[in-house]
Amino acid sequence: MQKVISTAVIKRLPRYYRYLGELRKKEVVRISSKELSERMNVTASQIRQDLNNFGGFGQQGYGYNVEYLYTEIGKILGLDQEHHVAIIGAGNLGQAIANYGDFARRGFDIRAIFDVKPELIGKEIGGVKIRSMSELKDYVTNQKPDIVALAVPKEHAMQVANDVVSWGVGAIWNFAPTELHLPKDVVVENVHLTESLMRLSYNIRAAKDKQKESETEQ
Amino acid sequence: MQKVISTAVIKRLPRYYRYLGELRKKEVVRISSKELSERMNVTASQIRQDLNNFGGFGQQGYGYNVEYLYTEIGKILGLDQEHHVAIIGAGNLGQAIANYGDFARRGFDIRAIFDVKPELIGKEIGGVKIRSMSELKDYVTNQKPDIVALAVPKEHAMQVANDVVSWGVGAIWNFAPTELHLPKDVVVENVHLTESLMRLSYNIRAAKDKQKESETEQ
Repeated sequence: MQKVISTAVIKRLPRYYRYLGELRKKEVVRISSKELSERMNVTASQIRQDLNNFGGFGQQGYGYNVEYLYTEIGKILGLDQEHHVAIIGAGNLGQAIANYGDFARRGFDIRAIFDVKPELIGKEIGGVKIRSMSELKDYVTNQKPDIVALAVPKEHAMQVANDVVSWGVGAIWNFAPTELHLPKDVVVENVHLTESLMRLSYNIRAAKDKQKESETEQ
Repeated sequence: MQKVISTAVIKRLPRYYRYLGELRKKEVVRISSKELSERMNVTASQIRQDLNNFGGFGQQGYGYNVEYLYTEIGKILGLDQEHHVAIIGAGNLGQAIANYGDFARRGFDIRAIFDVKPELIGKEIGGVKIRSMSELKDYVTNQKPDIVALAVPKEHAMQVANDVVSWGVGAIWNFAPTELHLPKDVVVENVHLTESLMRLSYNIRAAKDKQKESETEQ
C-alpha cells in the first residue's frame, strides 16, 4: 500500500532540498531539526513530522546528516533521474524557461522548443534550436519527452495539451493561465502567475488592515 | 480583531476568482456550491468553509450570485485597487512579466523596468522603456511603486531587495531562486520555478510507483 502524502508536505520538500543543497555546498555535515527549522521558518516538530512521512532520517541527539538527507529527499523528488523536457511556445516565457540555468543542474534536460512563428523557427535559445509546430507530433511520438512545458497563449493551451497527451506525454508543466482538464493519470503542475500576484495583493491588503488596526488600538 | 486566514484558503481564492470571472463572462447569474465544487475539484463543504472565512456570501437553496461573489472576492484579494509595479531585471523573465497581458487587466500597472545591461537600456518592452539601474533609487523614492518584481540573478536578489525595501518598497514579487530574508512587515511572494518543477518530478515518480503497484497486485 502506498502512503498518501499531503500536498502541503510535497510543497515543502523542494524547499528542504534547496536549503540542504546550500548547507552541503558550505560543507556542513549535520544539522539539528531546531537549526533547520529556524533557517526555514517551519517549526522543528513540523520538520520531524514531514520527514517521518518518508521514514524519518533523523537520529535523537544527533540531528540530520546533511548529505544523506539531501540525497534521500532528492530520490523522493525523483531527482535521481534525468527528465527529458520539451517546451511548447518560444515567446518570452518559453525563452525564459529555456534559459533558466538551474533546471539542467537538477537533471531537467531541455531538448526541444516549438513555436508557430516563422521568424522564430531556426533561432537558438539556450543552445536549443526552435522547431516548427508541424514537427511536434513526430518529435513527441519518437523522442517521448517526459515533460512538456506549455508556454502558449491560454486560447491554445487545452488543444495543445490534448494533442501531446494523445501522443503519449504523461506530464505537463502548465504556464498558461487556464485550468487544463486532462485524464486523471496525466500529471499536471501549474504555474499561474496571475494567481501568485493576487496572493501578493491579498497580503498587501491584509498588512495594511493590520497596520490600521494597530494604529486605532494605540 | 483580525481573523487569521490560513494560507491554504488564500491560495484557493484566486482560483475561485478566476473561475467566477469565466462564469461571469458567460453571463451565468448564479451557481450552487455543488456545481462550483465539481468544476473546481474541491468539495462543496470545502468551498462553503472557505467562503465562511469571509462571511459566507451563499444562501441556502439559492447558491451563490456570481457577480456578487466575484466582486467580493476581488475586494478580499485587494483587486479593487490599482497597483503600481516596477520590474527589476529585463532578461527573458523580466520581459515575460512585462509582456504578460493578464496583469494590466487585473489592475497591476507595470510602469517601469530596470536593468544593468547598457544594450537593453532605452528598449521598449510592452510599451515601457527599460531604464538604467542607476535611476532606481530616484524612481523608487519619488514614484513609490507598490510592488517590485525581482527578476535578477539570485546572487544579486538579496542586495537589490534590501535596497528597494530601505527606499520604502513594501512588497516584493520574487522570481530569483533564493529565500529573501527581509523585515517581517515586508510582503514577499515567491515564484520558485525550480521548486514547481521538483513537485512535478515528485508526482511523476509517485504516479509511476502507483502504476507499478497496481501491476504487481494484478
